[in-house]
Amino acid sequence: MPRIACLVIALILLAACARFPALEGPLEISKQGSFIVGGRELRSAGLSVVPEYASGTVTVGQMYVRYQVPAWVQGPAMIFVHGCCLTGKTWETTPDGRMGWDEYFLRRGHPVYVVDQVARGRSATDTTAVNLVKLGRAPAESLPRVFAAGHESLWDIFRFGPEYGKVHPGLRFPVAAAAELWKQIVPDWNASLPQPNPTVAALSELATRLDGAVIFSHSQSGVFPLQAVAIDPRGIVGIVMIEPAGCPDAGEDVNAYRRQPILVVWGDFVEESPRWGPRMKACKAFATAVTANGGRAENMELTRLGIHGNSHMLMQDTNNLEIADLMIDWLRENVRR
Amino acid sequence: MPRIACLVIALILLAACARFPALEGPLEISKQGSFIVGGRELRSAGLSVVPEYASGTVTVGQMYVRYQVPAWVQGPAMIFVHGCCLTGKTWETTPDGRMGWDEYFLRRGHPVYVVDQVARGRSATDTTAVNLVKLGRAPAESLPRVFAAGHESLWDIFRFGPEYGKVHPGLRFPVAAAAELWKQIVPDWNASLPQPNPTVAALSELATRLDGAVIFSHSQSGVFPLQAVAIDPRGIVGIVMIEPAGCPDAGEDVNAYRRQPILVVWGDFVEESPRWGPRMKACKAFATAVTANGGRAENMELTRLGIHGNSHMLMQDTNNLEIADLMIDWLRENVRR
Repeated sequence: MPRIACLVIALILLAACARFPALEGPLEISKQGSFIVGGRELRSAGLSVVPEYASGTVTVGQMYVRYQVPAWVQGPAMIFVHGCCLTGKTWETTPDGRMGWDEYFLRRGHPVYVVDQVARGRSATDTTAVNLVKLGRAPAESLPRVFAAGHESLWDIFRFGPEYGKVHPGLRFPVAAAAELWKQIVPDWNASLPQPNPTVAALSELATRLDGAVIFSHSQSGVFPLQAVAIDPRGIVGIVMIEPAGCPDAGEDVNAYRRQPILVVWGDFVEESPRWGPRMKACKAFATAVTANGGRAENMELTRLGIHGNSHMLMQDTNNLEIADLMIDWLRENVRR
Repeated sequence: MPRIACLVIALILLAACARFPALEGPLEISKQGSFIVGGRELRSAGLSVVPEYASGTVTVGQMYVRYQVPAWVQGPAMIFVHGCCLTGKTWETTPDGRMGWDEYFLRRGHPVYVVDQVARGRSATDTTAVNLVKLGRAPAESLPRVFAAGHESLWDIFRFGPEYGKVHPGLRFPVAAAAELWKQIVPDWNASLPQPNPTVAALSELATRLDGAVIFSHSQSGVFPLQAVAIDPRGIVGIVMIEPAGCPDAGEDVNAYRRQPILVVWGDFVEESPRWGPRMKACKAFATAVTANGGRAENMELTRLGIHGNSHMLMQDTNNLEIADLMIDWLRENVRR
């Protein structure tokens, strides 16, 4: 009989093991789907240049969210917010076809929420001005400033190399697949949005709904999680800013940022970059100010951990999963259960 | 000993059963991710109104694809193409929070590929003209015609009722959640695209890569699968057109459409609609012509099957899964293995 008992236990254990997160192989999802947060109704007379469809009501200012919850949840939900000229695609399959952070964090046991910022990707843009100008009902200057980043500019902004087509030594971005990254780039209509950017309120609402989420931002969305905390800190249990385009001024009141741990992450070639060097410096001053006020903020420079060659798109770099592990370890140490 | 053998067999069977598709409960995914098909490089002098970022190369004309492959594949891949003013969100969680066709077809054993048409959602739009006009370098007339559908127009186009706010008797669309549908609506830049719409070539390329897929279209994308078949029929094993905005002229050569079964699906309130009635009539004539030429094309009117109240957004109607079952049954009968 002990043999049967052992067998039964082994098989039950085997079945139980199958529920533990696996870093490869089949993925068990307990729930998935999408929904849209925020939005306001707008009466417009420029919906179309066809007279019978010109006037009406549209909903703008909302944020698309796609989510997956793993079968075996091991930690808080992660909200991923992309940067300029990008969409939620940033966090999905990498340009060279490897696993993105959306799936990796899921496999490590975190519910994952990937958003498209307001007026980007699947989140609507208000194009009223385009039709009004085309119809001669508004002056050309009333058109929004749209920013479509070119490959040449992005090569520099993303720190792939010293000039277009030249690669930094040891660069971890898979430049052979750069063409696939360029396909991810979409125009940025942020300059046409009311301030503060409605994505911030939507992030705050999303985190509150989830009742405890970590918000990841990147580049242009860098300060969004901090702005969301300032609206309502209750739903946000941690913040990870991947190479933010800025940090709040260390000289101003930083008390709003004391309630949850803040990690700011930097790749390689930052200090020598006229764009990124000063931003890292400002974020270090910010972290010092937060810590001096009783908070917990830290800048993680990957090069100081012996990890070299990371670009601005470090969630797509060849060592992206190693970096994800660092984030997860840091969050496990610092986020209160 | 037979008892142990029985026990072992039962447990092995139990583990095997867990791999069969389940229509609710956890979902087992063998592979998922996203990629982008097509695209061409474009030199532009209107990327930005900021001089140093005005000129450069962007990639446009590509199509975003998100996919999931179930652990237990039971049939061909399904490619879902949304209609006007919508994105891939069409096929995901419904406005009132029920399961969308993307997940249901997956649970029924089909790999699912959901796309954003070129210049919609996560697929880039060329906004060069907007900046050139704003800068005074191009005339206002050179602006593209953008179409942002208003709630009032859509109420009519989607056949929710005889006038805005009034509902057809027995309507199956969850109108209480209409505000959530309005949040899915994004501007349509199709008029700015080269002809034929680059989405068609991208669909053909995607189906060829998948080596055997069914393409679902809806409304504005109605004829896209037929146009894709005309480019290269090899990858396309079946076509389902959900209330297409048109069908090819029955009087023209329909030989290109003989190779794979074609199903055209219609909801309720169609015949009395000045917009949809003539379209259904044209699609019936088209199906007759295809069948007369040795093909297999059929119009499925849900009302003739005793299913009443379906809107134009039948993949989001309250009986959406029942309709999905009809599609799956039809495809199992008609698609060659």
